[in-house]
Parts: sequence; C-alpha cells; structure tokens
Amino acid sequence: MNDHAPLTRYIVRVRFRDTDLMGVVHHATYLEYLEAGRVEYLRRRGMDYGEWTRRGVHLAVAEVQVRYRKSARFDDRIVVETRLAELGRASVRFAYRITREGAEELIAEGETLLACVKDNGGMQRLPEELANVLRGPETVGREPDKA
Amino acid sequence: MNDHAPLTRYIVRVRFRDTDLMGVVHHATYLEYLEAGRVEYLRRRGMDYGEWTRRGVHLAVAEVQVRYRKSARFDDRIVVETRLAELGRASVRFAYRITREGAEELIAEGETLLACVKDNGGMQRLPEELANVLRGPETVGREPDKA
Amino acid sequence: MNDHAPLTRYIVRVRFRDTDLMGVVHHATYLEYLEAGRVEYLRRRGMDYGEWTRRGVHLAVAEVQVRYRKSARFDDRIVVETRLAELGRASVRFAYRITREGAEELIAEGETLLACVKDNGGMQRLPEELANVLRGPETVGREPDKA
Amino acid sequence: MNDHAPLTRYIVRVRFRDTDLMGVVHHATYLEYLEAGRVEYLRRRGMDYGEWTRRGVHLAVAEVQVRYRKSARFDDRIVVETRLAELGRASVRFAYRITREGAEELIAEGETLLACVKDNGGMQRLPEELANVLRGPETVGREPDKA
Repeated sequence: MNDHAPLTRYIVRVRFRDTDLMGVVHHATYLEYLEAGRVEYLRRRGMDYGEWTRRGVHLAVAEVQVRYRKSARFDDRIVVETRLAELGRASVRFAYRITREGAEELIAEGETLLACVKDNGGMQRLPEELANVLRGPETVGREPDKA
Repeated sequence: MNDHAPLTRYIVRVRFRDTDLMGVVHHATYLEYLEAGRVEYLRRRGMDYGEWTRRGVHLAVAEVQVRYRKSARFDDRIVVETRLAELGRASVRFAYRITREGAEELIAEGETLLACVKDNGGMQRLPEELANVLRGPETVGREPDKA
Repeated sequence: MNDHAPLTRYIVRVRFRDTDLMGVVHHATYLEYLEAGRVEYLRRRGMDYGEWTRRGVHLAVAEVQVRYRKSARFDDRIVVETRLAELGRASVRFAYRITREGAEELIAEGETLLACVKDNGGMQRLPEELANVLRGPETVGREPDKA
Repeated sequence: MNDHAPLTRYIVRVRFRDTDLMGVVHHATYLEYLEAGRVEYLRRRGMDYGEWTRRGVHLAVAEVQVRYRKSARFDDRIVVETRLAELGRASVRFAYRITREGAEELIAEGETLLACVKDNGGMQRLPEELANVLRGPETVGREPDKA
C-alpha cells in the first residue's frame, strides 16, 4: 500500500444490529463500513455521490476482499481508513484499514475494486472530473452528528 | 383476526446473520421475515411481485407493528403465517403470526399496512386483478430448495 | 407525546446499504435508526449501554410500531428524535420522530416498548440508577466523527 | 477449484431487503448467501452447526473474497454452490459459485477461510469428527419450505 496515497479517516459507531451471536460484529457488516468509508472519502473531496448516481455514474463493486484480524464489538468507535490504491480508465481500487479509535491494533483490512458503470450496468470511462476528485486531497471537513 | 381469512404459511430458516449479541434473532430481522411471508402469500396465488413492480405497481409499507413474545435462534425453522386482514381501495393490511416449526408457541405477531403506490411514490387504486389475487386461496405449491 | 419529556436528537447518515430497489430507505432499516437513537439517548446521559449489557442488564425490544410518512434517501442526513414516553417498573417506552436535517417534514414516527431482562431473558426490575438516567437531561455532548 | 471436491447446492430466494437503489442485490448481501450455503453444507452432512456453537466450537470467518460477475435481482432463485477447497489443522477454506437457478451464467464466485475458534476467540484444532464431516458426501436431504 502506498503510504502517500490520498486517504480519509472516518469514524463509525458500531450498532447493536451489527453484531451476531458470537458477541462481535458480523463479518458481513464490515462491507457496510467500507462502503461508508469510501462514500466519506468522496464527500471530503467535495463530491456528492448521490448526485453522481442521479447523473447515471455509478461505482459498482466488482471485487471485495477482507481479512479479519480482531473483533470489533457493540458501541466501539472504529476508524475506517480509506486509501486510493489504483485508478484505472473505468475502475478504481480502494484499500482499507479498520482500527479501534485511539488504538493501533488492526481489526480488519481489505480492498474493493469498483467499476464505473451506467444506469443500465454497462461499463463507462471514469469522468475526468471524478478521476481528479479521487486523486486529490480532502477539501471538506467533517459534519456534526448532533442536531 | 379473522380465522377464515386467506392465509399462507412459509418456512424461514434463521441465518447466523439474523442474530445479535444477545444470541437471539435481532428484532429488526423480523421485518424481513414478514416481508418474505407476504411475498410468498402473493406467489402462492400466482402473483409475481417482481413483475408487478416492473409494471409500476408497488405495495409500500406504510405502518408496521410487531409484538415479540419469545426468542427465535440461529438455525431455527420458523413458520411465518401471513393472513389477509383488510383490503382497502388503495391499501391492504396483513396480519402475521410467527411460530417455531412443529410448535404452537407464539414467537412474534404483527401487522403491516401497505399502500399501493406508483413508481413516483404517489398513491394509486389497487388494480382489480391484484385485489382478486389477494382475496383468493393458494393456487400454487411450494418450490424445492435444493438444486 | 409529552413535549416536556427528556429527549435526544441524533443524526444518522443514510448508507447505500440502507436502501432498496425502490430507491429509498427500506422500512426495516428504520428499526436500526431507532435503536441507534436510543443508544445515543443513554450515552448523552452518561450511560454506557455496552457496560450495562456486560453487567447482565438488557433492554429487550418487546413491541415496535412505526408509521412511515415520507421516504428517506441515500446520503440524507436524518434526525432521530428519541423521547422518553413512559417509565415502568421493568419497562420503558420511547417515542421517536424522524425528520430530514434542517427540515420540519416528518419522515417517520414510532414507538418501542423495551423490557428490562436478565442474561437468561427473564424480566427484572429496572435498576434505580438506570431509571434515574432515563428520566434525566443530557449531561454529555456529542463525539466527533472524524479521526 | 477441485471438481471432485465435496459440494452442496443450496437455493436462496432473493428478498426485497437484499436489494439496493441500483435495483440489484447489494454486494454485502452475498456474504449472507455464502454463509447460508456453508451452513447447509454442514447440515447436509448431518452436522448441526448450532449444536457445535453451543459446544464451544466456532468457525469464524478469517478472510473473504468475492468477485461479482452479474447482478442478481429481487425474487430470483439463486443457487449457492459450496465446495470444500482446503482443510487445515485449525481452518477450512470453502469456494463458492453463485448462479441463477436453471442457468449456467456465473453471478458471483468467492472464497472464505474459516478459523476454528473457542468461545473466547482463541484458535483450536478442528475436532476430528468435524473434519470427517467436512470431507464427506451429503448424507441428509433437503427440508420442505412449506408448513
């Protein structure tokens, strides 16, 4: 992983629903955390993913890989670190590291390959505007979570 | 609840993902079971809900109520009993009872009010063909779950 | 609903996973939002729900009721307003209102009845310390969502 | 993938809840399908996974990898083919193929590495009885899905 790659750190609070009978976060839940992390990666670069989907540009998940190292638990605040790993003509690969807030220990790490697709599911080239946003640094701060 | 109302019994196998750290099925999961039950209610009457949604007729959930009596657990086979409770001009109400297969004991019971809506979310009258299906008896058997 | 009842407002960002093929948040997802809202209600009063569950005190959902008024969509920031509705010897009822951030329009409203139970699922009286927390005002602020 | 490896085919009906606003099954949902597939793999070999978890033997997901080829949609009946890929001292790897019932076309394929762990999360050797079950052929038929 390129340590100089643009990255975003996003905190997710583990919900009760995220756990399973083992008392820890269910492995499928992590895909939701990675998704939240990359949506935030885009938002912090001024990109409204909802707006792009309405314009017919979607980043569909083509591959996912996760390695689970430690368990996360209910009510933990975990940090999802999303990093740009590779930018193709019609695809983008993100790498992720999940840690507990304030701790170094790795909970999980993973990668997702996203394909740029149209409303009908067909591939399309990544719009240059979008590619530039993906390559760039954060330009937008976090938003408050209290009304 | 009208004991003579048309009904469908559908068996759901509880998945590991359906549980939470209390070791039992998470309360939100039951809404998925009720949904699976009413989709099966329609299928057993020859109605393909997916086909209706493609024709712009949707049954959107307007109200839901569930009372939880006992816990269901991982790998349980539970019976979702879906019963027609009320058929309006643009809405339909189903009542549900969930039991463990082969047992009388009630695990949960509930009701959902569904509004008939268009693609844009606006209300529309229930098509007569659909109303007739809802009122009728089962005409289609179950399908095998082994390939 | 008692307008003077203690309340907590909590913002949830709608995830992609929360939606369904109608393009809106799936009705079952709202139960996760209500759950997140009441966990935050407790946290803002200095109570660590995870800690209580480790001590064998659980607030199990006994009844839930939701009325859906408008659709929430991907990436919306919604406000979950959780209000104490009734405090019993071994139960507590919360009432909820969900709105879009910065808008008055009601997206959904609901209630949950929670029973105080032991690890084995049996009922127990609400510990006085917990009852006092539930009745009280917020004492703790929000936490940042950026690492 | 070893074509002679023991395998199990299990049919899953796609639920409405499984979809997202793209109109197709959300990528995280596939992990639930794979999980249901391997639980069925065990059941068809006479093994009650719920019973083993109560005895303190768990198969925790250590790695997961999925490649998404085509979309599955609401109400599709999909076939989850689970195949034993590798049996270690304290781990087991399964490989999966997901197709639409009655079609050859691959919807998704994946692998999971499961570690055999104790209640406290520590690794333990796979019990020989369990290893034998994993290596063996199906001995139990499907169960009916109609009450």
